Amino acid sequence: MTKIKVGIVGGTGYTGVELLRLLANHPNVELQVITSRSESGLPVKDLFPNLRDHLNIQFSEPNVLTLKNCDLVFFATPNGIAMKMVPELIEAGVKVIDLAADFRIKDIKIWEQWYGMEHACPDYVEQAVYGLPEVNRAAIKQASLIANPGCYPTAVQLGFLPLFENKLLKTDFLVADCKSGVSGAGRGANVGTLLCETSESFKAYAVPGHRHLPEISQGLDLFNGSAQSGDVDLTFVPHLVPMIRGIQATLYGKIDSKAISLAEIQALYEEKYINEPFVDVLPTGSHPETRTVKGSNMCRIAVHQPQGSDTIVVLSVIDNLVKGAAGQAVQNMNIAFDLDEKAGLNLVPLMP
Amino acid sequence: MTKIKVGIVGGTGYTGVELLRLLANHPNVELQVITSRSESGLPVKDLFPNLRDHLNIQFSEPNVLTLKNCDLVFFATPNGIAMKMVPELIEAGVKVIDLAADFRIKDIKIWEQWYGMEHACPDYVEQAVYGLPEVNRAAIKQASLIANPGCYPTAVQLGFLPLFENKLLKTDFLVADCKSGVSGAGRGANVGTLLCETSESFKAYAVPGHRHLPEISQGLDLFNGSAQSGDVDLTFVPHLVPMIRGIQATLYGKIDSKAISLAEIQALYEEKYINEPFVDVLPTGSHPETRTVKGSNMCRIAVHQPQGSDTIVVLSVIDNLVKGAAGQAVQNMNIAFDLDEKAGLNLVPLMP
Amino acid sequence: MTKIKVGIVGGTGYTGVELLRLLANHPNVELQVITSRSESGLPVKDLFPNLRDHLNIQFSEPNVLTLKNCDLVFFATPNGIAMKMVPELIEAGVKVIDLAADFRIKDIKIWEQWYGMEHACPDYVEQAVYGLPEVNRAAIKQASLIANPGCYPTAVQLGFLPLFENKLLKTDFLVADCKSGVSGAGRGANVGTLLCETSESFKAYAVPGHRHLPEISQGLDLFNGSAQSGDVDLTFVPHLVPMIRGIQATLYGKIDSKAISLAEIQALYEEKYINEPFVDVLPTGSHPETRTVKGSNMCRIAVHQPQGSDTIVVLSVIDNLVKGAAGQAVQNMNIAFDLDEKAGLNLVPLMP
Amino acid sequence: MTKIKVGIVGGTGYTGVELLRLLANHPNVELQVITSRSESGLPVKDLFPNLRDHLNIQFSEPNVLTLKNCDLVFFATPNGIAMKMVPELIEAGVKVIDLAADFRIKDIKIWEQWYGMEHACPDYVEQAVYGLPEVNRAAIKQASLIANPGCYPTAVQLGFLPLFENKLLKTDFLVADCKSGVSGAGRGANVGTLLCETSESFKAYAVPGHRHLPEISQGLDLFNGSAQSGDVDLTFVPHLVPMIRGIQATLYGKIDSKAISLAEIQALYEEKYINEPFVDVLPTGSHPETRTVKGSNMCRIAVHQPQGSDTIVVLSVIDNLVKGAAGQAVQNMNIAFDLDEKAGLNLVPLMP
Repeated sequence: MTKIKVGIVGGTGYTGVELLRLLANHPNVELQVITSRSESGLPVKDLFPNLRDHLNIQFSEPNVLTLKNCDLVFFATPNGIAMKMVPELIEAGVKVIDLAADFRIKDIKIWEQWYGMEHACPDYVEQAVYGLPEVNRAAIKQASLIANPGCYPTAVQLGFLPLFENKLLKTDFLVADCKSGVSGAGRGANVGTLLCETSESFKAYAVPGHRHLPEISQGLDLFNGSAQSGDVDLTFVPHLVPMIRGIQATLYGKIDSKAISLAEIQALYEEKYINEPFVDVLPTGSHPETRTVKGSNMCRIAVHQPQGSDTIVVLSVIDNLVKGAAGQAVQNMNIAFDLDEKAGLNLVPLMP
Repeated sequence: MTKIKVGIVGGTGYTGVELLRLLANHPNVELQVITSRSESGLPVKDLFPNLRDHLNIQFSEPNVLTLKNCDLVFFATPNGIAMKMVPELIEAGVKVIDLAADFRIKDIKIWEQWYGMEHACPDYVEQAVYGLPEVNRAAIKQASLIANPGCYPTAVQLGFLPLFENKLLKTDFLVADCKSGVSGAGRGANVGTLLCETSESFKAYAVPGHRHLPEISQGLDLFNGSAQSGDVDLTFVPHLVPMIRGIQATLYGKIDSKAISLAEIQALYEEKYINEPFVDVLPTGSHPETRTVKGSNMCRIAVHQPQGSDTIVVLSVIDNLVKGAAGQAVQNMNIAFDLDEKAGLNLVPLMP
Repeated sequence: MTKIKVGIVGGTGYTGVELLRLLANHPNVELQVITSRSESGLPVKDLFPNLRDHLNIQFSEPNVLTLKNCDLVFFATPNGIAMKMVPELIEAGVKVIDLAADFRIKDIKIWEQWYGMEHACPDYVEQAVYGLPEVNRAAIKQASLIANPGCYPTAVQLGFLPLFENKLLKTDFLVADCKSGVSGAGRGANVGTLLCETSESFKAYAVPGHRHLPEISQGLDLFNGSAQSGDVDLTFVPHLVPMIRGIQATLYGKIDSKAISLAEIQALYEEKYINEPFVDVLPTGSHPETRTVKGSNMCRIAVHQPQGSDTIVVLSVIDNLVKGAAGQAVQNMNIAFDLDEKAGLNLVPLMP
Repeated sequence: MTKIKVGIVGGTGYTGVELLRLLANHPNVELQVITSRSESGLPVKDLFPNLRDHLNIQFSEPNVLTLKNCDLVFFATPNGIAMKMVPELIEAGVKVIDLAADFRIKDIKIWEQWYGMEHACPDYVEQAVYGLPEVNRAAIKQASLIANPGCYPTAVQLGFLPLFENKLLKTDFLVADCKSGVSGAGRGANVGTLLCETSESFKAYAVPGHRHLPEISQGLDLFNGSAQSGDVDLTFVPHLVPMIRGIQATLYGKIDSKAISLAEIQALYEEKYINEPFVDVLPTGSHPETRTVKGSNMCRIAVHQPQGSDTIVVLSVIDNLVKGAAGQAVQNMNIAFDLDEKAGLNLVPLMP
């Protein structure tokens, strides 16, 4: 079988090295090029010794000509980089999966407001497919340009989806209280993410507004069939957990009291996700731990109705670097290239 | 000045050793007796080497006769122990501060239902004062029996209090999403709190119902002047954070839109707590970190109104072993014995 | 191809669940039975949710009759269990790999002294092969009974081996200063391994004597061709590191000054291990991090000669649960059953 | 009583904030000025919220004129800063304690070689007193300029001292295998000390040579009464532990076999340190944990003779930011200003 020729732009961050880990053992992929302006010339294994014996490639200068020889290019770059190179690649017939946020938000004005820059190719935003397979699998199959979802948006949307599809929620007051390991903040040299600043501590951040809010809201509005943005009133608060990997979203909403039992809601979740390879609905009463998905592409979900009230609490956990980034990107690749959706992703989480 | 003669029942857990740390340097206290059935005869410093050079006392068998010679007895025991010894001590004129839950809930039926045992002295529950100084300082001054609040209830009630006092909240949907370090689970030998089970992971627990829920609800009903229990609809979800110390409560509620600005709410918080020695209202826009209260009796609070909506988010952090347990107990002692409320509690948090 | 029918005795500890993780994806293995007295009847995935979607088997009572139907039985039990069942299994033609210490020490008196019990089958100790493939590969190929090495002994012996083989060391003063993550202490409910007792702290333990000392000494004496035990004078001090996985051995010894350069020693190490699939000699000047082997069967080694002196410092890192336990056991299985030695072990370490 | 007027140059690093924590509650100190070029004008409590309610001062531009009004100036700056300002301050009659390395090494050539710069005031190196109170208390009392020891050198020298003083060691092969929490690497923004790079991992670093080696060697040579530098052959290997605070030094050396028993050595240690307020010799057989000194100025030491051999193993633990930096600086201040040596340092370690 011919392998997919793959390029990665920006491979020195945590999503980059995670992508490398997943692709190194992927049976259908041949990694052709990995670019990094700062590390050009350096063997990947010198920067990431975990890849010794697994990858024999070196970082090179980003170069559209080289990238055009690929079947697929992943962008594991900061926001605002992919949008400058994507048009040329797409025109050349290369598929693109952007792990950053350049193509996630359909409303260009909202995107520009939250990301603080002008969008370089608004037309491509329109044609981009939001790469949440559980929602957009058919479109992903046909897509040239895939906007890989953010980490929080993945955990939150998968957690809320069955409630919206079954129109169970009062949408005037939803809460997504989310917690992420520190790897979500990236591999940049910042005082704020030093071990001595984040270990043995916990905090909320970006309470006034986080860039993942408009992405989540766009998704929930779609689930809700909202006439206009804002019909779903979501409060989203992210927190920093003193650990490397993992996201937990704790979701709160009201349903019409007595209208439906927890057992029925549980059944709706199980039914919704029964054929999904990477969503696992836990038995009633469960409390998923982020470590049960560490290193894997799985999202585990549990549904609760505390004290038999009309409040529903959904617990949704993912590995932010896998289902929240690189793993979901590989899943999207598998779908877009008609491979087994689980190819290269049959990973057993590391425990303990 | 004569020192207060103090006894501690049950000093081998984390609240016990924390109490010892605080009392070892307290200028007005003479520690007379510390009991432990399992460690009787052992010098305290052999179990807790951090106390070498600070405490020269050994564990002894619990004995009411010896305890009666104290002016004050702290119970740092599991639930259900204090209630068996308290009547005799109180009758003997000894003041008691119970760090466990025996005297926190006024409604005996609710207590018995949540704690799964019959209460041994319901009459004493009635006379017990709930030891949250910011609410009950005057009563604590006169109290013989003080029910020291739980850790989550302290963080949640201090966070919500000004909103209730000013009747700003819609009480039909409040959320307290709380996160605690592992020390909250105690020093017992359990697989669930091993480093290998809790480190590098995050989870919710007890979502169907946690014993601190009725304690918090009782407090909020009081703040609300509720005609009957249950008028305040609170959903409380605790989570386990991979760290030793610290609690963060993230509180959510709706206010009447446009009725009041964030600046005005901020002012109400500052005004409420301006004279409180152990509540610190942070400037608008702040995100308190639990490490900024590590080892200290401080509660730090920040108020947010994300996106200018009608949702209020309050962030409240404490050290669960200090303001959430031993520190608040010492604060209550200081009040009850007419000492400087900050005596022995002028602790600078350890950072980093 | 027919698969190897495998049984595991004692699958509820950390080496057990790690064995399950590795075998779940092993192409040549069919897991037939996994026993646990305490968890009999429980689906494995209920105890270890990371194995949901990967293993559909439940714990059963240990039963020699059932185990006899296996081609191979792993013992992931406490010391002293395997020796009671091994003779019957071996007689029945079942191969056995014991991950505990029952068959590691050839001198029965020494074993009984360190392990505090009488050995149940000394004859089998004699025929057992010490399963360090880099030393005993040929014997492992033929073995019926394999004594899987301890975690510290693996890291220490692989680190020292080329120095001994080339007779470079003065053997009258060797130091192995070793550091292990907490998972090495097992999944038992002990106060000493609670997160709150081990996190944010570091300590040496068992300095007067640790059970891995006689195992290491036996190995070094063999490497040394010692006439009698004790010719090699090794001081071994283990330490506990506040992390889950990983061992680092820092090894110290004197060579004859000026006799050989660091570059020559480096070359000897590279030559020794060039064909070893699971030993990776790092470039001169390297400092291996335990995280670069997390979840993998690799041992990474670096050699130093500080300040150009006659002291050699060897740094050797492994994942204690993989190359130090379950991974090495699978490697031994692969060798003993004539499979690709890397089958099921082509794992990319998780980083970060 | 008049208070000592104190200035701090460079207060934004971890030794700076630790100094602030200690001085904030010191009964004999008035903090007059704290400088920081980068944070000039910022209230200290805005950078370090743990100091809210404890310190009401703001960072200012470094200015010799202002500093000259102090009785004492601490330098908590990077290496090479203090030496430029010290002469002017000393001439003005201000005492100086340098927490960096500018005045620790008497041999200027060695200092310049290890620190990679020319020394600005070699004359002052000569008059500087090395501030290890257990060795130099009398000289510290008279000193104008105190070179506060490094963190590793403190733990190592205190651990070896009684062995040297009693001439028990063979000095031709000593090992100091040292382990430090990440705060030792400072508060700079470096990828290498991010939580995601250091947590859940362990490594040696600087094996070819670390700046603390010449400092330790200078001390051991003095203890040894060496005719010339290098008579004591020490191998020093530092390691990074995934925790915030704490150093453990594990020290190895040979004594003349049978010449002296462990009990006798234990007695020598106890005798040596019996009157030292900040060195605690643990009972025979102990394994000190770094957490037992967390936040305190204590050094705890245990002595072992594994297997009754002629090897001595000394375990020495300190909090690198306290006895290894700011606490020892305060201890030196107390001595130099004739205060109670424990003033401001009567701190109970935080446990858990």
